[in-house]
Amino acid sequence: MKLAELAAKVGGELVGDGGIEIRGLASAEDAGPGDVTFLSNPRYEAAVAGTRASAAIVNASWAGACPCARICVPNADRAFALAATCLGPAPVRYEPGVHPSAVVAADARLGAGVSVGPCCVVARGASVGARTVLVAGCYVGEGVEIGEDGLLYPNVVVREGTRIGKRAILHPGAAIGNDGFGYVKEGAAWIKVPQVGGVELGDDVEIGANATVDRARFGKTVIGHGVKIDNLVQVAHNVRIGDHSAMAAQVGISGSTRIGRGVQLGGQAGLAGHLDIGDGAIVGAQAGVTKNVAAAAFVSGYPAMPHAEARRMHAHLMRLPETKKRLEAAEARIERLERMMTANGKGDAQA
Amino acid sequence: MKLAELAAKVGGELVGDGGIEIRGLASAEDAGPGDVTFLSNPRYEAAVAGTRASAAIVNASWAGACPCARICVPNADRAFALAATCLGPAPVRYEPGVHPSAVVAADARLGAGVSVGPCCVVARGASVGARTVLVAGCYVGEGVEIGEDGLLYPNVVVREGTRIGKRAILHPGAAIGNDGFGYVKEGAAWIKVPQVGGVELGDDVEIGANATVDRARFGKTVIGHGVKIDNLVQVAHNVRIGDHSAMAAQVGISGSTRIGRGVQLGGQAGLAGHLDIGDGAIVGAQAGVTKNVAAAAFVSGYPAMPHAEARRMHAHLMRLPETKKRLEAAEARIERLERMMTANGKGDAQA
Amino acid sequence: MKLAELAAKVGGELVGDGGIEIRGLASAEDAGPGDVTFLSNPRYEAAVAGTRASAAIVNASWAGACPCARICVPNADRAFALAATCLGPAPVRYEPGVHPSAVVAADARLGAGVSVGPCCVVARGASVGARTVLVAGCYVGEGVEIGEDGLLYPNVVVREGTRIGKRAILHPGAAIGNDGFGYVKEGAAWIKVPQVGGVELGDDVEIGANATVDRARFGKTVIGHGVKIDNLVQVAHNVRIGDHSAMAAQVGISGSTRIGRGVQLGGQAGLAGHLDIGDGAIVGAQAGVTKNVAAAAFVSGYPAMPHAEARRMHAHLMRLPETKKRLEAAEARIERLERMMTANGKGDAQA
Repeated sequence: MKLAELAAKVGGELVGDGGIEIRGLASAEDAGPGDVTFLSNPRYEAAVAGTRASAAIVNASWAGACPCARICVPNADRAFALAATCLGPAPVRYEPGVHPSAVVAADARLGAGVSVGPCCVVARGASVGARTVLVAGCYVGEGVEIGEDGLLYPNVVVREGTRIGKRAILHPGAAIGNDGFGYVKEGAAWIKVPQVGGVELGDDVEIGANATVDRARFGKTVIGHGVKIDNLVQVAHNVRIGDHSAMAAQVGISGSTRIGRGVQLGGQAGLAGHLDIGDGAIVGAQAGVTKNVAAAAFVSGYPAMPHAEARRMHAHLMRLPETKKRLEAAEARIERLERMMTANGKGDAQA
Repeated sequence: MKLAELAAKVGGELVGDGGIEIRGLASAEDAGPGDVTFLSNPRYEAAVAGTRASAAIVNASWAGACPCARICVPNADRAFALAATCLGPAPVRYEPGVHPSAVVAADARLGAGVSVGPCCVVARGASVGARTVLVAGCYVGEGVEIGEDGLLYPNVVVREGTRIGKRAILHPGAAIGNDGFGYVKEGAAWIKVPQVGGVELGDDVEIGANATVDRARFGKTVIGHGVKIDNLVQVAHNVRIGDHSAMAAQVGISGSTRIGRGVQLGGQAGLAGHLDIGDGAIVGAQAGVTKNVAAAAFVSGYPAMPHAEARRMHAHLMRLPETKKRLEAAEARIERLERMMTANGKGDAQA
Repeated sequence: MKLAELAAKVGGELVGDGGIEIRGLASAEDAGPGDVTFLSNPRYEAAVAGTRASAAIVNASWAGACPCARICVPNADRAFALAATCLGPAPVRYEPGVHPSAVVAADARLGAGVSVGPCCVVARGASVGARTVLVAGCYVGEGVEIGEDGLLYPNVVVREGTRIGKRAILHPGAAIGNDGFGYVKEGAAWIKVPQVGGVELGDDVEIGANATVDRARFGKTVIGHGVKIDNLVQVAHNVRIGDHSAMAAQVGISGSTRIGRGVQLGGQAGLAGHLDIGDGAIVGAQAGVTKNVAAAAFVSGYPAMPHAEARRMHAHLMRLPETKKRLEAAEARIERLERMMTANGKGDAQA
C-alpha cells in the first residue's frame, strides 16, 4: 500500500512522499524501511525521533521532529487502529457450518453462516445468532442465547440460560454463568445456596481469557453494552456493570456491587460487595474499594480513598523519618528550655 | 406454589395471606407480584420496605415493616436457600451414560448412573463414582479417583493420581493436580524439581471456575471436607486446608502453608509460604499474610496484622496531616519560648 | 533402590547404612521407614530431627543431628530434584500418534513421535516439533509453531501465529496469543484496536495453569529462554521478558513493560505499563510497581519502593501511636513552660 493511500484511509494529512510503499506496522524502535509506526504516548518521542520507519502516524498537535514521512491525525490511537486493520495480517477465517466432531442438540437454533468448530457442544434449546463463530472446544449450555456476529475463542464455557448480545468476543477459557459463591453456615459446615439466577451480556461486550462471570443468586448478573473486561477478571453474582465500563486484568468485583456507566477499573483492583460505583468513576490499579464511590471520582489505595488524598497520605508517610527527627529535635529543645527554666527558677529563687 | 406451602417448606411462620400464588424469587428491588423476596442484609431494609413483592422471607428478629406478607424464620439466608430449591428453575439434567464423542479408557471404572458428556476424556485406571457427571470437555487423568455424586462442569482438568471425595463440584476450567512451581537455580537457569506428589480433596468440596490446585512436590496437597474455593484461586503445592474453610475469589496460597479448619480468606488475599493459619482465623480481603496467624484471629492489611491494629494504624495514618500541623505549631511555640527565654535571660543578665 | 545407590545418583556422601532399601520420598513429618526426606529450609530442622524417615538428604554445611542415615550434598534442593526423578512415580506416558478424535489440518506438520491426544485441534499451517505431546483438548491455531519435546497439558489454547521454542511446558488451560486489551475511546464507546502482532516463547519456557499471555498490538510479545511463569499470571500485549526470569502465581504485567533477565516477581505483584525492570531485580509479593526498577534492586510495597525503605516506612508507621503520645507529651510540656514563662513574666513584672 502506498503511503498516500494509507493517509487517506486513516483520514490524515500527509507530510512527505506519498509514493513510499508501506508493508507493515511496527513500534518506533523495531520498525525498518517499509514500516509505519505511530506516536501517541509521549514516552516514546525519543524512539520516534530515532526511528528507521518509513512513516509515522502522529497527533496533529505534536510539535516534535521525526526522520521520516508523517501522517498527521486528530487521534493517533484511533488512526493506528484503522491502519492495523489495513496492514495487519488477514484475520483467521472460520468456515461456516458445523464441524463433524461438534455436538449440537437437535433443537438448538443456529443462524445463517454460523461456524461451530471442532469439539464444540451446543446444548438443548440454545440459539446462536447469524455469523457467530465458536472456534473449538466451546460449550454453550441449555437455553443459552448468543447474538449475531459473535466470536467465541477456544474452550469458552457459557452455562445454561445465559443471554449474550451481538458482536460478543469471548476469549479462550472465559467461563460465563458459573454458580455464584454463596453458602449459609450450619454448625461448622457451609450449605450451598442454590444460584438460580442468570447472566445477561449486552451488545459489543468483550470478556478476557480465563475471566469468570458468575450467575446471580436470583435475578441476573448484568453486563451492559460495550463493556470491556480483560483477562482473569472475576465478576461475582448479582453484579451489575453499566454500559461502556472497562476493567483491566485480574480485577475482582464482589457480589451485588453495582458499577455505573463508563467506569474504569485498574488492574488487580478489588471491590467489596454491595457497593455503588458511580458513573464515570475511575479506580486505580490494585485499589481495595470498601465504600461507595461517587460519580466521576478517582480513587486509589487500600482502603481506597480519593486519589489526591491517597497521594497526600503517601507523601505524609514518606516524610515520617523527617517527622521523627523534628519531633526529637523539639523534645530536645523543650528539655533545654525546661532545664533553663529550672535554672532560672533557682536563679529567681536565689534572687 | 401457595405462600402457605412455601412457609411450611422453609419452616417459617407466615404473617399474611397463605393463599397467595408464588411463582418466583427476586431481589426486593426487582420483585413484582407473585415473587417472594428476602431480607438478611440490613443494607436492603429500605428496599424491602418499598418492595412490590407478594411476600418476604425475614428473620424473626426483624422489627421493620414491609408492604407484603412475610415468612418469619430463624435464618433468612438458610430459608432462602430452601426457597430457591423449590422455586428456582429445574436444574439441568445430564443424561447418564457415555457420550459417543467421549474417550474412556478400557480399564476406567464408571459407577452406576455416571454421565460422561461430549468430548470428555477418562484416562487409564481412573474411576468415577456413581451418579457423578462430567458435563463436557473434562479431562480425568490416569488413576484419578472421583467419588460419587460429583459434578464436573465443562473443561475441568484433573491430572493423574488426584483423589476427589464425594459430592465434589468443580466449576468450568478448574485445573487440579498441576505441577507445583518448583525449581532450583543452576547458574542463570532454573532446573525443574519434579513434582511427584498428589492432590487429595475431601468430600463436599467446591472449586471455582478457572481455579488452580497444584500437586505436591512429594506427599500430598490436601483440601479437607466441605472446603469451598471460589473462582481464580491459586492453591500451591503441599498446601493443606482444614475442613470447612472457605476462600473468596482470586486468593493465592503459597507452597506448604497450612490452613486450619473453618478459616475464611477474603478475596485477593495472598498468603506467603510455609505459614500456619490457625483454626477459625479470618483474613481480610487483599491482605498480605507474611506470618503465622493464631486461631480465631482476624488479620488484615499488608503486611497483615490484627484487624483492630490495622484499623488503628490506618486512623493514625489519616491523622498525619493534623500531626504535621500540631508538630509545626509545637515548633513555633518552642521557638517563641526560646526567644522569650533569651530575652528573659538577657533581662536576667541585665538585672 | 538401596540408599548407597541413591547417594551415588545424587552425587552425595553417605553417612549411615547404604544397604537400607528406599522406596519413596516424603516430608520429614510424614515420612516413615523406607522413605527418604530432605532438609533445605531451616524452618524444618525440628521436623528432620524427629523424623521417622530412613534417610535424609541434607546440605553438607548443615551441622544439625537427625535420627537416620544422611546423604550430604552441596545443594539439597538440587539433589532432591534428582532423587524425585529416581524415586517418584513413573511419569505418564502419552502414546505417539494422532488420536482418532483429534482434528489435524491436512497441511499441519507433525514431527516424529508427536502425540496429539483426544479432542485436540491443530489448525492449518501449524507445525509441532518431534516428540511434543498435546495431551487432550488442546487448540493449536493457524500457523503456530511449537518446538520439539514440548508438553501441552489438557485444554491449552495457543492462538494463530504464536511461536514456541523447544521443551515448552504449558499447564492446563493456559491461553497464549489472546488479543491484547486495547481500545480507543470514541464518545462513550470503546473501539477495539486490532491486535495484529504475535507472541514468541523461547526454549525451556513453562507457563502455569490458566495463565494468559496476550499477543502484541503489533510486533511481538516476547518471553525469553528458560522463563518460568506460575498459574494465573497475566502477561499483557507487547511485554518482553528476559531469559531465566520467574514469576509466581497471579502476577500481572501491564502492556509494553520490559522485564530484564533473571528477574523474580513475587505472587500477586502488579506492574504498570511501559516500565523497565532491570536484570536481576526482585519484586516482592503483592507489590505494586509504578516506576522503573533498577537492575538487581529489590522493591516491595505499594507503590513499590526499595525493600529496605519499605521496611523502614513500615516501622515508622507502626510507631505512629508512640509518635502521637510523644507529640502530646511535648505539647503538655510546652504548655507548662508557657504557663511558667507567663508566671515568671508576671513575676518579672512584679519584680
